[in-house]
Amino acid sequence: MQHTYIHEVVARDGLQIEPQFVPTEQKIELIDALSDTGLAKIEVTSFVSPKAVPNLRDAETVMANIKRKPSVKYVALIANLKGAERAIAARADEVNLVVSVSETHNRANVRRSTDASFEGFGEIMRELERTGISVAGALSTAFGCPFEGGQSSGRVLQFVGRYVELGVRSVTLADTTGMGHPKQVLDLCSAVRERWPELELALHFHNTRGMGLANVLSGLAAGVQHYEACLGGLGGCPFAPGATGNICTEDLVHMLECMGYTTGVNLDKLLAVSKRLGEIVSHELPGQVAKAGKTTDLHPIPGGLH
Amino acid sequence: MQHTYIHEVVARDGLQIEPQFVPTEQKIELIDALSDTGLAKIEVTSFVSPKAVPNLRDAETVMANIKRKPSVKYVALIANLKGAERAIAARADEVNLVVSVSETHNRANVRRSTDASFEGFGEIMRELERTGISVAGALSTAFGCPFEGGQSSGRVLQFVGRYVELGVRSVTLADTTGMGHPKQVLDLCSAVRERWPELELALHFHNTRGMGLANVLSGLAAGVQHYEACLGGLGGCPFAPGATGNICTEDLVHMLECMGYTTGVNLDKLLAVSKRLGEIVSHELPGQVAKAGKTTDLHPIPGGLH
Repeated sequence: MQHTYIHEVVARDGLQIEPQFVPTEQKIELIDALSDTGLAKIEVTSFVSPKAVPNLRDAETVMANIKRKPSVKYVALIANLKGAERAIAARADEVNLVVSVSETHNRANVRRSTDASFEGFGEIMRELERTGISVAGALSTAFGCPFEGGQSSGRVLQFVGRYVELGVRSVTLADTTGMGHPKQVLDLCSAVRERWPELELALHFHNTRGMGLANVLSGLAAGVQHYEACLGGLGGCPFAPGATGNICTEDLVHMLECMGYTTGVNLDKLLAVSKRLGEIVSHELPGQVAKAGKTTDLHPIPGGLH
Repeated sequence: MQHTYIHEVVARDGLQIEPQFVPTEQKIELIDALSDTGLAKIEVTSFVSPKAVPNLRDAETVMANIKRKPSVKYVALIANLKGAERAIAARADEVNLVVSVSETHNRANVRRSTDASFEGFGEIMRELERTGISVAGALSTAFGCPFEGGQSSGRVLQFVGRYVELGVRSVTLADTTGMGHPKQVLDLCSAVRERWPELELALHFHNTRGMGLANVLSGLAAGVQHYEACLGGLGGCPFAPGATGNICTEDLVHMLECMGYTTGVNLDKLLAVSKRLGEIVSHELPGQVAKAGKTTDLHPIPGGLH
């Protein structure tokens, strides 16, 4: 029996690319319901330009009105110093920094070089030092870039090292467009864990090519205990229209609990929130367990067979 | 580098539960196109009662008109002696027998006890002995029954043993309604392989609860080289409306090739047949790689970023 920590990203990563703006009060309702399920972290919103991410233009209002539970870390994504100031004002428990391993993807995503991104992170770390806010660093496209293709593991390790040098104690390897495969995940996570055994390593997978939970299995084999996932399997990437999005939180929790891992998450409560999410976004969700039921949900024996 | 063998079941397992009958000439077109992709086995049809499976009522015509390749084994599912006689007449390369590990599921599926099923298999084996037709034995609900729940691994091993005693050299553990999880797959496959190292062990997974390819990963870890899959991820189970079906052949081949396993399958050809399948069944398929593209399919760099 081993414990795993589930980081829920639906309110940020999921809702940001929904075709419709989800009303602020429904976001708050969703996050409050998630707070009651036993999740370790909830990524609430991002403090970025409302022009860049109009769906999350209500970041301050959401942060100010959610009912916080002491057992949950409430996280906000930030891109620069201004975002850090907003996150401090909103009393985030943790901020997420993000840089792409791929130079091209970083320029496309935040319009600057990866060097410039890390320089900015230095400023942000100094700004946050005087607060109690912890910092997590994400590495986008760590398992491949949709423009450049594969990224060398040497480069990924170098980027992890740059975060560690900045004082970041939690690093997330993100498979931004679902390009990672299980062997790659095992090799890369093993290398990171061997080099930085004290680092809190988290994984962020997409199910774009169906390998999401298989990649989690490799993460587990490498000893990784932190996984980001998205309720209902919402989210996704603009380059894969029709494909599924992030790995689905309820499918992940279901698999982990089946395998004997503890998650601290009440799956029935989570499934109820997933159902509510489907009503809020008004479209079908890619998640499977919400449709098929848990493996322990048995069916009546067909008539006449006793 | 290790070789894996892909058994394609779409023409039988996929088409049998489609809401619409697929015309005979389109079945033949599909199977002929699949024959050209490098698959090891193709399950063509089943010789069962046309009343039980009306979608496959054209079994003889399909078998008689496909263009066979010597590199492919053409398989037919049979349920009884009459089916065996039909398979002999149709010159199947291999027949698949099937019994459920769950007593209740076997009664629901074939209206007899598991003991009666194995007695019938004895007769079939004697009938087939004088032919060159090989026999594979499938164990349905090997990872759980939708009526009874979990099945003990002792019972699964006992059933494998019964097939082996009958002279069956290839056994498929089938997760009929997608209840198996990766730890269970690793444990059960390891036990079977330890007990019968010479047996050709195959795995048949469904993606009902999102664990399909993760279960394959466990099969690989246990040394299993044979996998059944369904083009486009067609198929499924009547107890999980809306859930995905069998694991998707193109997603499976894509993952295996990414990981460095050889499959002998030309993925581009397979994706082309999957596209044609979508036209034939006239609905969206659950497969992911057909929508998202291979990880090696890169995207143009967004404008203004050079």
